[in-house]
Amino acid sequence: MTYDDQNIFARILRGELPAFKVYEDDQVLAFMDVMPQAEGHTLVIPKTPAITLLDLDPEAAAYTIQVAQKVAKAMEKALDVKGIVLMQLSGAAAGQTVPHVHFHLIPTSVHELGKHAAQMGDMEKIKAIGEKIKAAL
Amino acid sequence: MTYDDQNIFARILRGELPAFKVYEDDQVLAFMDVMPQAEGHTLVIPKTPAITLLDLDPEAAAYTIQVAQKVAKAMEKALDVKGIVLMQLSGAAAGQTVPHVHFHLIPTSVHELGKHAAQMGDMEKIKAIGEKIKAAL
Repeated sequence: MTYDDQNIFARILRGELPAFKVYEDDQVLAFMDVMPQAEGHTLVIPKTPAITLLDLDPEAAAYTIQVAQKVAKAMEKALDVKGIVLMQLSGAAAGQTVPHVHFHLIPTSVHELGKHAAQMGDMEKIKAIGEKIKAAL
Repeated sequence: MTYDDQNIFARILRGELPAFKVYEDDQVLAFMDVMPQAEGHTLVIPKTPAITLLDLDPEAAAYTIQVAQKVAKAMEKALDVKGIVLMQLSGAAAGQTVPHVHFHLIPTSVHELGKHAAQMGDMEKIKAIGEKIKAAL
């Protein structure tokens, strides 16, 4: 499968689409999921083009998980969360909807996880939560 | 929370409990989950003691995700899987049952994921699948 550079995360990375960003450096971007499976659902993506974890450059994978650790800690500090589910779906058959590799950080229990990519959230609320996480980073 | 060195993964790492191992080096162990959420459910754990992704040494996190990439590729090669769900639960409130950080690799769709840590699988079948993955590594 060839990387589609018109996927929405590629467009967010190029600044063509908006996102509630909580963290950004030259290699990684973290931003709020607009279809949250729980309040505070955040995405961490490498800037390197890759579709799944399997075709992601190992160096980029290493750095992305380290940023995910930082974002998870900020979520724990900023929000009243006790547990965090990290999830990464590789392949449409796994439920992946955007073909740019992304790690989900979802402050909830795996037993209470909302349906994946099912429903748009409340943008004002998502923005406000994103600002709290950003401030804790 | 203090790391409990009597948790079952610590005991597996010390060789006190058995496991169907698919990969091992001096830093990481990958083995079959005995309560699979789908056929081929594999765990990848750092040998470094840590409870969650949040308290795991960043170097160990980086290396563990790189091994997870290799194991995922082997799963794709060895089994007839199209999608892989990577999951990591941080904290009992997230559904974590063993207090040693672990990454789940589950060859299925997030929409069809079996219940977490709910039921023992068929050991002979799990062993046979583990051998296929190991052979592909």
